[in-house]
Amino acid sequence: MDARIEEHARILVDWSTNVQRGDNVVIAAGPDAHELVVALHRELGERGATPTTLYSSGEASRAHLRAHDDDFTLPEHTLALYEACDAAIHVRSDPNLAALNDVPGERLAERSRVYKPITVERLSKRWCLTQHPTNAHAQKADLPLAAYRDFVYGAILRDWKAVEDDQAELQQRLEAASTVRVVAGETDIRMSVDGMHAINSSGRHNMPSGEVFTAPVPDSVEGTVLFDKPLIHQGREMEGVQLRFEEGAVVESSAERNEEALDDLLATDDGARRLGELGIGTNREIDRFTKNMLFDEKMGETVHLALGRAYDANVGEGQTGNDSAVHVDMILDTSAGRIEFDGEVIQEGGTFVWE
Amino acid sequence: MDARIEEHARILVDWSTNVQRGDNVVIAAGPDAHELVVALHRELGERGATPTTLYSSGEASRAHLRAHDDDFTLPEHTLALYEACDAAIHVRSDPNLAALNDVPGERLAERSRVYKPITVERLSKRWCLTQHPTNAHAQKADLPLAAYRDFVYGAILRDWKAVEDDQAELQQRLEAASTVRVVAGETDIRMSVDGMHAINSSGRHNMPSGEVFTAPVPDSVEGTVLFDKPLIHQGREMEGVQLRFEEGAVVESSAERNEEALDDLLATDDGARRLGELGIGTNREIDRFTKNMLFDEKMGETVHLALGRAYDANVGEGQTGNDSAVHVDMILDTSAGRIEFDGEVIQEGGTFVWE
Repeated sequence: MDARIEEHARILVDWSTNVQRGDNVVIAAGPDAHELVVALHRELGERGATPTTLYSSGEASRAHLRAHDDDFTLPEHTLALYEACDAAIHVRSDPNLAALNDVPGERLAERSRVYKPITVERLSKRWCLTQHPTNAHAQKADLPLAAYRDFVYGAILRDWKAVEDDQAELQQRLEAASTVRVVAGETDIRMSVDGMHAINSSGRHNMPSGEVFTAPVPDSVEGTVLFDKPLIHQGREMEGVQLRFEEGAVVESSAERNEEALDDLLATDDGARRLGELGIGTNREIDRFTKNMLFDEKMGETVHLALGRAYDANVGEGQTGNDSAVHVDMILDTSAGRIEFDGEVIQEGGTFVWE
Repeated sequence: MDARIEEHARILVDWSTNVQRGDNVVIAAGPDAHELVVALHRELGERGATPTTLYSSGEASRAHLRAHDDDFTLPEHTLALYEACDAAIHVRSDPNLAALNDVPGERLAERSRVYKPITVERLSKRWCLTQHPTNAHAQKADLPLAAYRDFVYGAILRDWKAVEDDQAELQQRLEAASTVRVVAGETDIRMSVDGMHAINSSGRHNMPSGEVFTAPVPDSVEGTVLFDKPLIHQGREMEGVQLRFEEGAVVESSAERNEEALDDLLATDDGARRLGELGIGTNREIDRFTKNMLFDEKMGETVHLALGRAYDANVGEGQTGNDSAVHVDMILDTSAGRIEFDGEVIQEGGTFVWE
C-alpha cells in the first residue's frame, strides 16, 4: 500500500475526527477507495475504535432514484446509525462523476430535503469530508492518476497544527474587521462582515482544508466581480462569470460560457442573488484548479464568494445570514490583486502582509 | 448487466424479504457484488423502499481485528442501524476467502461474542443471506467464473413457491416422525426427533435454499456415520470424517485428512460432541460440492448433520436442543442409501417415495 494512504488515514483519525478509545465511527466510501478503507480500519483498530462502513455508489443511488417514483421517506435506520455514532468520515471516491447526470435535479433536491435530518445529525458529530484519488477525479482535473495522487497528497499530507497556527493571524484580523474589499483585475467588490464570525478551517471538517471564511452582511455587498475560474453548479460548467452587486443583490450578470445556467442559478430564490460566504484560501500546495470544490476553494492566493446560504457558524448573534436553497462557490485569483480589511491592505500580490 | 443478476435481486426483495413500501432495508455487500447492489437499489426503489448498504470486506475486517489489541466494544451505531431496519440482505462476495486466515480464531470468536446483539437483532428482522458469484468462490469450487455463475444462478433462480409446496410433504412427515435413520454405505445412524420442529426452508433466509431440517434429541443419537464430502471448520478442511455415537455423544472419531482439526473441533465444549441439526437437502440444481455450506447443505439427495448447537426454532416446547459454541455441518450422500422415519422408508436411492 502507498504509504501516503496510511498517512492520510492517520490524519483523518487523529487530527480531523480526534478518535478516542471506544468511539463508534461511520466511514462512507466507494470501492475505488478500498485501500483507504482498509487503512482506516487499521488506524481505528489501533485506537480501540469500531468502524461501520457505508458503501457509497453514485451508480447505485441513481438506480434507486430513477426507480423510485413516489414520495421519498426518511431512512430511519440510517438516521439511527448516525445518531449513535461518535464520528463520521466521508470519502469521495466516485468512479464516474457523471453517475447522477440523468436524474432530474428536482428529485435530487427533494431527496436531500427529506434526508436532511441525517445530514444535520452527521454534522453534529465529529465529521470530516475527504478525497481519495480516483481516475474519475484525475480525469476531471486533466491529470494522469499518478500526477493527481501527488497533487491530492501534497494538499492533504501537511502539518495541520502548523496550518492552524499560521491561519490564526488571518482569522483574528477577519474576525475583528468591519469591511472587506477585494481588488483584482476587473474585480472591485466591498462588503460588510460586521458582527460575523471568521472561522479558521484547518482540516477538522474538510481534508484538505486551508482557508479562513466568514459570511457577508447580506445587503452590504457592492461592486463588480469577475470569476476567472470555471464554476460548476449541478454538473453545469460556467466560465467568465461577471456579477455586479448593489445593496447586496446581483443587478447585472453575464457569463462567457453557459449564461443560461447562471440565469437558472440566480433565479433559484431571492437568496441565490446574494452572497452567503467570503473565504480566503491559504493552501499553496493546491496550485491548480481541479474542478473539485473541496480543493479549489482552499487554493492559496484566491478568494471565494458563495452565492446562496450562509453557514450558521459564521453568523454572529443579532446578525442575519443569507438564506437560500443553494450555496455555490465561485473563485477569483488574487495573486495579482489585493485584499483590504477596513481599508488596510492585508494581502497584496498573493502575499499576506505579515508573511 | 446479466439479466440473472436482476432476477436474483427481484427474488431477494419479493420472495426472501417481502419488501413493502416505506421499508428501510440494510444491504451488506462487498465491491465484487457491485452489480447486485445496483440491481437491489433499483428493485427497492421500484417498491418505494430505502436501502442503506454496508461495505463488507474481509480485508478491512482483518486490518481492524489485527490492530485492535484491547477488549472489543459493541458498535452501538451498527446495532441502532439494525434495530431501525425492516429487512436485511447479506450478500457474500468475498474477493479472497482466506482474508481472515491470519487472525487468531479466539479473537474472531471473541468479536462474535461481543457483537452478538447485532446478530440477534438482524435475525429478528426479515433477513436473507445470499451469494454473488465471485472469482474467489468460483476458485474454491474449482470452476471457471462463467461456469460458477451458471451453477449459482441455477440454484437460485427457481420458483420458490413451488419449492416450498414440494417440500411440504417432507416437512409434515419429519414433523410427525419420532425417529430418523439414515443408511448409506458405511453410515448407519439413528436418532430421535420427537417433539422437535421440522422447518421447510424455501429461500426466506438462505438464498439458495432447498432443505427441511430439524434438531435431534441430544442424547438419542446412536450409530456410525461416514461423511464422504470434505468438511470445513475455521478454514481447516477435513476429509473422510467418521464418527461413532453412543447415547448422543461421539465416542470414536477419525479422519482421513486433518484429524487434528477434527479433534480440536470435538474438544471445543461438551456440545461439540453432539448433534444440533439434521437436514435433508432437496435442491437438485446443486449438483456438485463447492465448499460453500450455503449451497452444499442444500444439495439434493444428501443429508447433513451438524455437530454443535441446535437452532431455537427447531426445539419444541419441553424439549432441550443441543448447546455449543460451534455449529459445523457435515454432509453425506444418500443417492445410494435410504432415509427412514419411524421405520418407514421415505427416501431410497435419492428419490422420495412420493416423487
